[in-house]
Amino acid sequence: MADAALVALAERLQGICVGRGLTVATAESCTGGLIAETITSVPGSSAYFLGGIVAYADAVKDGLLGVPGSVLAAHGAVSAQVALAMAAGARDRLGATLAVSVTGIAGPDGGSESKPVGLTYVGLASGEGTDVRKLVFGGDRATNRSAATTAALEWLIELAGAAR
Amino acid sequence: MADAALVALAERLQGICVGRGLTVATAESCTGGLIAETITSVPGSSAYFLGGIVAYADAVKDGLLGVPGSVLAAHGAVSAQVALAMAAGARDRLGATLAVSVTGIAGPDGGSESKPVGLTYVGLASGEGTDVRKLVFGGDRATNRSAATTAALEWLIELAGAAR
Repeated sequence: MADAALVALAERLQGICVGRGLTVATAESCTGGLIAETITSVPGSSAYFLGGIVAYADAVKDGLLGVPGSVLAAHGAVSAQVALAMAAGARDRLGATLAVSVTGIAGPDGGSESKPVGLTYVGLASGEGTDVRKLVFGGDRATNRSAATTAALEWLIELAGAAR
Repeated sequence: MADAALVALAERLQGICVGRGLTVATAESCTGGLIAETITSVPGSSAYFLGGIVAYADAVKDGLLGVPGSVLAAHGAVSAQVALAMAAGARDRLGATLAVSVTGIAGPDGGSESKPVGLTYVGLASGEGTDVRKLVFGGDRATNRSAATTAALEWLIELAGAAR
C-alpha cells in the first residue's frame, strides 16, 4: 500500500487534473508500478488516470512503449534517452495529455561505476514536447523507488498546474 | 510500499519461477499496479518478471491488451470475459509464460446491485489456456485491492508450481 506522503501527492494531482480536464499515463521501469498504484489508491482516480505500462524487460520497453532497440543498445535502459522515449511512447499509446516515465537502478544490484545504484531518470511528455530530469538517490531499494515516485508525482503536479 | 504478507508471496513466486525458468506478466485494472509493484519490490525480480499493463480506462484494455470493444460493451469491464481477455492479451503481448489479470470494483464508488463493491475477477493465462475465478471481497478500497493482489499471487504460485 502506498504511504501517506505519496498518497497526498496523488490527491493533489487528481484535484488539479480533474479540475483542468487533463489525463495522465505512466511508463515505469524501476518503480515497477508504484506510481500507478499510488495514483489509483485514491478513489475517483479513474476520472483522469488512463493507465500505465510497467516495462521491466527491455523487450517490453521496445514492444509496448516503442523505445527503439537501437536507443536501448546505445545508451542503456537507464538513460535520459530511454526515459524520454518511454514518456513519449506512453503519452502516444495511451492517448493521455501528460505522461511520466521513470527508469533507474533501484538496487541493491545492477549498479556500476558510471551508473550507480540510485541513478534515476524521470521523463515527462506533454503537448509542449518532452523533458527529462536526472536524479541520484542514496537509499535502499524501497527508499529509492519511493523517492522516484515522489519526484514523478511532483513534476506531474508542477506541469499540470502550469498547463493552459 | 507493499505490505509484508504480499511481499512474502512475491518472494515465493520468484523462487519458483526463477527455479523453473518461467516468466510472468500482469494486466491490472482495479489493483492499479499493486501486483506489479509487489512483485518488483523483491530484489532480483527482473529475472522472471517482464512487465505489466495497468489498464484503467476501457480504451486501454482494448488498445494495449486487445480486449475487444464488443466484449467490454456486452459484459462490462468487470466480468469474467474481460478478465480472461486481459490475461490472454498480456501473455501474448509481453511474451510471458504466465500472465495474471484482475478486474473488479474496489470501491467506494462504482458498485451496483448486480455488481457490488468488492466483486473481482482474476484471470490466468498459460500455455494450457486461460481460466478465471470470481471473488467477492467485503472490505474498503485498500483492503479489496490487497485481497485481489493476494488472490492473484497465490494463483500464480499454484500454477507455477504445477507447471512442467
